[in-house]
Amino acid sequence: MSASDKVWTAALVVIGDEILSGRTHDKNIAQVASWLQVQGIRLTEVRVVSDDMDAIVAAVNALRTSYDYLFTTGGIGPTHDDITVDAVAAALGVDVVVHPEARAILERYYADKPGGLTEARLRMARVPDGADLIPNRMSGAPGIKIGNVHLMAGVPYITAGMLDALTGTLEGGAPLLSETVGCWTAESEVADVLRQVEKAHEDCQIGSYPFFREGKVGANFVIRSTSREVLESAVDTLCEALGEEGFDFTPGGI
Amino acid sequence: MSASDKVWTAALVVIGDEILSGRTHDKNIAQVASWLQVQGIRLTEVRVVSDDMDAIVAAVNALRTSYDYLFTTGGIGPTHDDITVDAVAAALGVDVVVHPEARAILERYYADKPGGLTEARLRMARVPDGADLIPNRMSGAPGIKIGNVHLMAGVPYITAGMLDALTGTLEGGAPLLSETVGCWTAESEVADVLRQVEKAHEDCQIGSYPFFREGKVGANFVIRSTSREVLESAVDTLCEALGEEGFDFTPGGI
Repeated sequence: MSASDKVWTAALVVIGDEILSGRTHDKNIAQVASWLQVQGIRLTEVRVVSDDMDAIVAAVNALRTSYDYLFTTGGIGPTHDDITVDAVAAALGVDVVVHPEARAILERYYADKPGGLTEARLRMARVPDGADLIPNRMSGAPGIKIGNVHLMAGVPYITAGMLDALTGTLEGGAPLLSETVGCWTAESEVADVLRQVEKAHEDCQIGSYPFFREGKVGANFVIRSTSREVLESAVDTLCEALGEEGFDFTPGGI
Repeated sequence: MSASDKVWTAALVVIGDEILSGRTHDKNIAQVASWLQVQGIRLTEVRVVSDDMDAIVAAVNALRTSYDYLFTTGGIGPTHDDITVDAVAAALGVDVVVHPEARAILERYYADKPGGLTEARLRMARVPDGADLIPNRMSGAPGIKIGNVHLMAGVPYITAGMLDALTGTLEGGAPLLSETVGCWTAESEVADVLRQVEKAHEDCQIGSYPFFREGKVGANFVIRSTSREVLESAVDTLCEALGEEGFDFTPGGI
């Protein structure tokens, strides 16, 4: 494998009791995953843990050394249940310090707001010692980057802005390309075809995702490859195979 | 702690490349979490892993011994990327066998469908040796239960039916109760109040979830306890504290 073939990997730790209680439906897994795809980095593992120091430290330490990048979402706000900065600092064995630039950002942001920069709000200027900031275009408090660990907000639209600020700044490989082929058939009827097409193409994975729509069963087959050529060949072969077996072939997918 | 105070815990492994690519937004974390709450069992950790044997085995073995119950979603269908049964069997060190009752269910289900019970469909009767079935009211293939491990579908409405079939069959503790208090204030303005109210009540956690609506910032405070009495006391204290500080208090939340 040449250097350019390196597969860049990332993990995500979603932090928050509200996800584990079922109260809040996580939206960050999908948005971080989609964003990483475009950066040429594969999201390989996600862990969801509660607002608990030991749980966050364990997840951060297990994942930051196993993957090229680690992202966290949640727990960087001003309240007592926001302990991500302390947990990541503990995981890395560094102190927590007030970042002067973060403090200045918060001073400006809260200058004209009731209460000003309170002690609780100043918590959001705390970072693990040695960290840089990730710009937050949506609200005051910045995200935090230390080594390969990126601490982001739990609120999805704030996280989206932070990801946008990071776009193009991380080294990645060839993006994983994908095409979806839809088919009005039970996936169980074409399982052999899928296996054969995948086997015949190196650097190619095919996923099968059944659905039930308009009173009929169907499936979407997602073909993935880092090579445009391999992808197109696999899609052509699959369409031909599905067509020959007499299925009503519907390109596009959902 | 008496036996009746035991906190019952569970973990969930979400299996599927489609989640890690961002193509599919997971819905199973929230629905399994909500269902477990009602059973008096706390979802304590979630891992999302790809359709990869080693990754599934590692997650299953790490979690099944750390928590009272383990659930998996995804990878129990008829296609080549459905390897959850094989991975769980490998994790438990048992063989994969065809379950006679599962085979009979599939024979009945596919009797009047094109192709009948093909070899691919028969894959869905394979279980780790020693497993029981979890009824599937939505489609043919059943879920699988072996020891404290529960294998469920990836398609959310099928998983919902399997959870429904499991309702009341798992030993749990007192359900975690919760109340939500909504407030038109920045959470950073009341951070101290939240910390104090939580500290004053044993068996009580308060989570703070900011929102931006109708052009105004606000926050929902979720108070959780296994004791109705503690919960009500904490809610009363919090409402009083928020009221005294002159906030426009809006009960209910979103």
